[in-house]
Order: sequence, then structure tokens, then C-alpha cells
Amino acid sequence: MLKIKIIVVDRTRSEFLKQGESFYMKRLKRYAQTEWVETKPVGIKKGRSTFGILKEEGDSIAKKLVIRDYIIALDRSGNAYDSEELAARIEKLSLTHGRLTFVVGGPLGLSKTILNRSHEIFSLSRLTLTHEMSRLLLLEQLYRAFTIIKGEKYHK
Amino acid sequence: MLKIKIIVVDRTRSEFLKQGESFYMKRLKRYAQTEWVETKPVGIKKGRSTFGILKEEGDSIAKKLVIRDYIIALDRSGNAYDSEELAARIEKLSLTHGRLTFVVGGPLGLSKTILNRSHEIFSLSRLTLTHEMSRLLLLEQLYRAFTIIKGEKYHK
Repeated sequence: MLKIKIIVVDRTRSEFLKQGESFYMKRLKRYAQTEWVETKPVGIKKGRSTFGILKEEGDSIAKKLVIRDYIIALDRSGNAYDSEELAARIEKLSLTHGRLTFVVGGPLGLSKTILNRSHEIFSLSRLTLTHEMSRLLLLEQLYRAFTIIKGEKYHK
Repeated sequence: MLKIKIIVVDRTRSEFLKQGESFYMKRLKRYAQTEWVETKPVGIKKGRSTFGILKEEGDSIAKKLVIRDYIIALDRSGNAYDSEELAARIEKLSLTHGRLTFVVGGPLGLSKTILNRSHEIFSLSRLTLTHEMSRLLLLEQLYRAFTIIKGEKYHK
């Protein structure tokens, strides 16, 4: 069974998004051994540069990355697949990689270091999404991708 | 104050998405007089064509459209703005139109008739989203657009 690791910054604060995450995590686990990893956030405070915050958050993320994993970062600058293309991409990757790691940044996004270290960058939308909404959308699209790969009905 | 009408097909079934909608509706009401209108869904049953379902749902939607409203349909085929572009578009429209109507279809989308009758089509993402997720994303982006227009902080 494919192993998926989803690395996110901080725990989910929004109650309804937390419920949504559990909902899709449960579904996703039918198709892949899915692990959810939360890393330490760095507060946005006066006097702290975006660069400094992203660097420190990136260091926490880097500790959770495993050398042989295929790493997919989420960023608006990435490839904007449609759902069928995303499913095809995941199916292809799953043939050559036992483990896929997705990385979703915090409110300020991901550091250049993490983006450069990733094998691939996905964009969910041209729109700016909250980082917590991105997580939900990622989970929903992964679930959707597996229903497409397996030719199964999408359960709403 | 700008008036916004959001026409959707059917009530929201997902509990967490319903909570999310209330959350953003409350925020949106600070910036626009926002009305949420649910129209009658047509069940997907054997023997019923997609065309027939969309036509019937479209008839229910059409009854809620007001002749002078500026109508924006949501569909993957539409313009994919980023959040700043969307805010600029809404700001510009609000100068010439007192009322903006957004239309989000059901699980099968919107009929050609409704798409043709719309003044504009927006796309939230190249990805296929559930129609209930699209509503949440639309509300969140409208709230975000107003914070951009007013130069206010985005409250998470």
C-alpha cells in the first residue's frame, strides 16, 4: 500500500476545517497509509522578517523529511493540474515511489529552501487560500484522485 | 452598501461545510448585504440525462435571477483570477452595479442556458471541486476580496 505523509505547519485552529480534515483522512486511509505530521509554527511578530520565519519553519519541516521520499510542496507557483491529471500523476509516482510526502506551509507559505528541496510543486488554485483551507482541499483532492485511479464512485 | 446574492442548488449536506458557510457569511455581511438562496435540486436517477437534470435545475435558478442583476456563474471553464484580480474585478463591478449575483451549480454543474445568461464566468480552480466545497471557497474569496478592497487585515 502506498504511503503518504502530509507535513503541515501548526495544528488546525478552525473547528470546521478540523472536522473536514478528519472526514477526508478517514477516506484516504482506505487507499494509502496516510500520516499527518504537524510542525512547529513561528509567530508573526514585529521585527521578525518573513525570511526569518520561513527559514525557521523550514528547519522544522526539514527534520520530518526522509531522504528517499518523493517530496511534493504546495505553492501557488506550482503546476496547476486538473483532478484527472493529478490522479494520473499520483498513479505514475506510486509505481516508482513507495512514499509520497506532501508539504503545506503556514500562513506565509514555504521557504525557498523547502521549495528547492521538493521534487515537484503543486498549485491548488491561482487564488490565495488560507493554509488551513489548502490542507482540506489537498486531502479532498487526494481522496478524489484515488477514486479516479480505482475507477470508483466519489462519495460525497 | 453593495448587495450580493448567492444562488446555490440544494441545501448544504456536509455539516462542517455548513459551519464554514455560516462563518464566512457572517464576515461577508460586514461588507455587503448578502443573501443566500437555495434552489431545488433534481435527483440523479437512472434514465435521466445530465442535460435534462441541468435544464430543470436551471429553470429553478432562472426564477431567482433578477433582470438588472449582474450575474456571475461559477464554472471550471471560466476566468481563473488570483485573489487580487478578483478583488479588483468586484470593486470595479460594484461601481456600476448595485447588485451582484453569483450562481453555483449542483453536483453536475450548471446548464448551458444559465452559463449563457451569465455576464461572466469565474473559475475557482482547475481542479474539480464538490459543489459544496465551491460554495465555501466562493464565500471565503468574497470575504478576502473585501479585505483587499478596504485594505483591512484578513482575520483567520
